[in-house]
Amino acid sequence: MLNFEFCSPTRFVFGKNTESQAGELIKNHGGTKVLIHYGGGSVVRSGLLDRVKASLTEQGIPYVELGGVQPNPRSGLVYQGIDLCRKEGVDFILAVGGGSVIDSAKAIAAGVVYDGDFWDYWAVKAVIPKALPIGTVLTIPAAGSEGSSNSVITHEETLIKRGTGGDAVRPKFSILNPELTFTLPQWQTASGVCDIIAHILERYFTNTTEVEVTDRLCEAILLTMIKEAPRVIENPENYEARANIMWAGMLAHNNVCGVGREQEWTTHAIEHELSALYDVTHGAGLAVLFPAWMKKALPHDPKRFAQLATRVFGIENKGDDMATGLAGIEAWADFFTSLGMPRTLRELGVQEKDFVYMANHLMLRPDGTCGKYIVLTPDDVVEIYKSCY
Amino acid sequence: MLNFEFCSPTRFVFGKNTESQAGELIKNHGGTKVLIHYGGGSVVRSGLLDRVKASLTEQGIPYVELGGVQPNPRSGLVYQGIDLCRKEGVDFILAVGGGSVIDSAKAIAAGVVYDGDFWDYWAVKAVIPKALPIGTVLTIPAAGSEGSSNSVITHEETLIKRGTGGDAVRPKFSILNPELTFTLPQWQTASGVCDIIAHILERYFTNTTEVEVTDRLCEAILLTMIKEAPRVIENPENYEARANIMWAGMLAHNNVCGVGREQEWTTHAIEHELSALYDVTHGAGLAVLFPAWMKKALPHDPKRFAQLATRVFGIENKGDDMATGLAGIEAWADFFTSLGMPRTLRELGVQEKDFVYMANHLMLRPDGTCGKYIVLTPDDVVEIYKSCY
Repeated sequence: MLNFEFCSPTRFVFGKNTESQAGELIKNHGGTKVLIHYGGGSVVRSGLLDRVKASLTEQGIPYVELGGVQPNPRSGLVYQGIDLCRKEGVDFILAVGGGSVIDSAKAIAAGVVYDGDFWDYWAVKAVIPKALPIGTVLTIPAAGSEGSSNSVITHEETLIKRGTGGDAVRPKFSILNPELTFTLPQWQTASGVCDIIAHILERYFTNTTEVEVTDRLCEAILLTMIKEAPRVIENPENYEARANIMWAGMLAHNNVCGVGREQEWTTHAIEHELSALYDVTHGAGLAVLFPAWMKKALPHDPKRFAQLATRVFGIENKGDDMATGLAGIEAWADFFTSLGMPRTLRELGVQEKDFVYMANHLMLRPDGTCGKYIVLTPDDVVEIYKSCY
Repeated sequence: MLNFEFCSPTRFVFGKNTESQAGELIKNHGGTKVLIHYGGGSVVRSGLLDRVKASLTEQGIPYVELGGVQPNPRSGLVYQGIDLCRKEGVDFILAVGGGSVIDSAKAIAAGVVYDGDFWDYWAVKAVIPKALPIGTVLTIPAAGSEGSSNSVITHEETLIKRGTGGDAVRPKFSILNPELTFTLPQWQTASGVCDIIAHILERYFTNTTEVEVTDRLCEAILLTMIKEAPRVIENPENYEARANIMWAGMLAHNNVCGVGREQEWTTHAIEHELSALYDVTHGAGLAVLFPAWMKKALPHDPKRFAQLATRVFGIENKGDDMATGLAGIEAWADFFTSLGMPRTLRELGVQEKDFVYMANHLMLRPDGTCGKYIVLTPDDVVEIYKSCY
């Protein structure tokens, strides 16, 4: 086990009707003027935004609003948010939405208190030293941004999609009400499930040995997702299944499932190229790419793949780790498909002509490679794209 | 799943040589005059106390010392600590030791800033509103106090053993170096393992249904303990096994494995009576009592016991939940015995003549019962004591 630090200071307020506590929580954290940041019309149509505003008004907290965050959030709106916060004297940012909204809020929070261009931090993945305090009301379990210190933003001119973060942008509180996810369309629900699973898999495949407790925690989240995801696809208003997924989504990314070892994150990097170029839904891209990456990685460490297959899918290992591991990878692909996710890049509208560009555009090391568990050249990345085209 | 709040703000600094960071961490948290609180001679003999002091001196932080914390920590030393802190102007408490030392430090921290008797909070289990900041250097994985908001103290005159807590007494940081546990005698190692397992079992047996993610996290910790504990018994200097146990011990009690449902804690209450009257090692008392309580609870919910037996011990369920559940309980008793733990109260020196006194002395409800998963009368508690005598 490697030396590590772990801290999860966000206060999670979980359950029915918890959005009514937003105003009180902001007050407890010293907020006196709030930016409410959100995405499209669903939070308006559902009445959620009105309920949140009412909660602030009840506490006598004034606010301004900035909607319009898109999936794969863009730098343009971040700049707008920074200007608005400065003009209005905002001292607390409340993100109402999914990971894109929260990531955008984190970027605004970092930018408001920084003299230069907020993108400076994202450009070189520098740790963000300070930021306005943030709270969240989560509507999509997927990105895990509600409990993480990370934020992924796409720069509008260069289409570079980059992540950075720091304890300064961790939400002070996050409100998680599973009922708010009842109305998510199946595509978004399933994409979120795949994103959550991918957050675990990026932490599961490691060359660091002997971290049994972290392995077991990872498997606990995966077993939960395999049980609960089909139940919400069948009945979107199943509160218990929605609740399990929502909480698992946080646990998959606050790093409790990742400590003590090297983490991978290569499939995320390979997928970010798709999302940036085609605006592919992140979780759907991962559903296609993760089995492809796993097949490439299988020969490197068949024992680990066999362990995952056995412990999570109950696949019997008849003494052949390669075969067992491969059966596990196929089980993942089948599981993603069963949720309505695509199996090929073609279904996502990705074009073969862009493979070489995307592989070279990846954030590669000076020696032109990427990856830790296995090291990939651009040719390897093209091969992975092709294998699931 | 029930509504809940979760927050784990302690910064855990885990790994080799991390005790050398104590001074820097205290400085980061604003400490300018420190009470170093510890137990017996082992932290002195091992040189740990000297290394910690050197780390404080390096940062120019003055300190005073108070050793002598006993297992099942007593109120007398807490009063001494409070007086010393006030006299010396201490503004940060560093606990160097196991759960008893940390619990004692929490009580001192609460008492220093309170005008009345610190026991007021413990007497009525009131939430502690404020306290001096605390840091810990953990030497025994067991109580989980390094990441929890709880503290259990025995009142010296009445021999009442009570727990209370609050976010105010959560450690600001906890240093966990598995190497510091190499020299623990087998008895203490095994008792700690049983305590950790009991912290999970108290959270596992619940009447709240449909909290799969928490079930799976609980099982993850239990599976880890079952794998790693025999390895440290065999080789006390197995770093990896020690590391897995140390981290699992924190996770078993910062409540990540308990959210969203009613928790039990009856076996702890039944055991506290033994510890208070006989100074029994807490984990050893739990090793004897938990299988006895489980046998009493089995008929209430055979399905849940069968689930635990199957998922954790891999016991095949041939369609008989009662038989499967019972086999699981026997497997726990055998596991505890395999670590060198006793199987009977007699081995712990407990006398049958005290059963009725202890059962009545339990913190019972006005109607003379205790327990949630199953409700116990004093007669039931006596029956449990007798069943493992």
